[in-house]
Amino acid sequence: MYKIILIRHGESVWNKENKFTGWSDVDLSEKGNEEALKAGKQLKKDGFAFDLAYTSVLKRAIKTLWNVLNIMDLLWVPVIKDWRLNERHYGALQGLNKAETAAKYGEEQVKIWRRSYDIAPMALDENDERYPGKEARYSGLLKDEIPLVECLKDTVARVVPYWKKEIVPQIRASKKIIIAAHGNSLRALVKYLDNISDSDIVNLNIPTAVPLVYELDENLKAVKDYYLGDPEAVKKAMESVANQGKVPN
Amino acid sequence: MYKIILIRHGESVWNKENKFTGWSDVDLSEKGNEEALKAGKQLKKDGFAFDLAYTSVLKRAIKTLWNVLNIMDLLWVPVIKDWRLNERHYGALQGLNKAETAAKYGEEQVKIWRRSYDIAPMALDENDERYPGKEARYSGLLKDEIPLVECLKDTVARVVPYWKKEIVPQIRASKKIIIAAHGNSLRALVKYLDNISDSDIVNLNIPTAVPLVYELDENLKAVKDYYLGDPEAVKKAMESVANQGKVPN
Repeated sequence: MYKIILIRHGESVWNKENKFTGWSDVDLSEKGNEEALKAGKQLKKDGFAFDLAYTSVLKRAIKTLWNVLNIMDLLWVPVIKDWRLNERHYGALQGLNKAETAAKYGEEQVKIWRRSYDIAPMALDENDERYPGKEARYSGLLKDEIPLVECLKDTVARVVPYWKKEIVPQIRASKKIIIAAHGNSLRALVKYLDNISDSDIVNLNIPTAVPLVYELDENLKAVKDYYLGDPEAVKKAMESVANQGKVPN
Repeated sequence: MYKIILIRHGESVWNKENKFTGWSDVDLSEKGNEEALKAGKQLKKDGFAFDLAYTSVLKRAIKTLWNVLNIMDLLWVPVIKDWRLNERHYGALQGLNKAETAAKYGEEQVKIWRRSYDIAPMALDENDERYPGKEARYSGLLKDEIPLVECLKDTVARVVPYWKKEIVPQIRASKKIIIAAHGNSLRALVKYLDNISDSDIVNLNIPTAVPLVYELDENLKAVKDYYLGDPEAVKKAMESVANQGKVPN
């Protein structure tokens, strides 16, 4: 039996401004930093420790992990940063305000983009300044690995192979692991671990910066999962995520 | 021709308290954090960028690197943390005040411990709470790799093979590299790169948190080296390091 911790990054500056973020490399807000520190304190209090950590190449996840490890006095732990744990790429929506986009395209259309499993929004083109191929950090990717946009299905298609190939062998080697990532890359992983259907996964809301424990059997399938901390606070955090993207009253 | 950056960690809490540190995992002081940020700004101003970073498993070096990468907006860069870049292990002197130790054993003896190439201070024993074998972070080391104390020669004997085996292939692969480490692990590396004699290396003082550029030829030997930033400030920083450990007036 194995136990791993998943954690979604704390509130980012664009969560706060209610913008579509995707691969935009926005920072944590002050509240996001605080959330991450709180998560680290909770993990420490509950007796967790790690000897290997994974995160994306986006600073809001990297800093969330840093805050957790720092407060746990575990900065020496190896940290592997990989683009395959990045947030879902939001294509041409990146940088747009969620409520304004809902007002322009209709709440229903935005809901489809945000919550359908296999329908992606409008793609970037390669001349767009937001195209990841322009950035040094993605210079190691093959051309056809660089997304112009993703639906959740596309995110699953990069997260799950990474999990199987890179993370599972470390879990089998008894490494104590934390994965700090994003709403949709974690959804992709949870879908696989819990064998959730395409239609159900889109309604699963993972709150920011609340440690999520997964207990796995010897086949690395989920036996049990639960959030750490106060259950009422967790419930409120999940509702807050579900309410994003509605047209403001 | 290759170019790498070496950087010694900023002032630690124990630099400030004038204690022997070695493998004790003490934090940066506020000044140390500031020094590291300043170094990052200088590197950015001078047009440097990195795509691979190395540091020790000690938080004063890890945090120095973090501050540099953070201010350069390069937190996505892979960071490899390895014990072989740790400070020289100071044995039973770790945690003792340098000036008090000088008063007790004589300034000359302390100078021998600090500045001889192949004479180590008193060793720890394995029951000592400071013994690295008691820590999770060193659980991957073989028993005979775990030091009880080191002289500079011992530090050279772990740093140089690590350089050759792990770092050189990355430099040859054209990775742009920064190494954030410690006074003596950097001394060990500089000794090798510049082919400095055993007697001369002990007088080389590397200032805290000043970026040190090494230009290397195709055989990875040093062609040229220089500090970035204001030359007068660098000179003062080097003198300040050389004066540590004297009996206070």
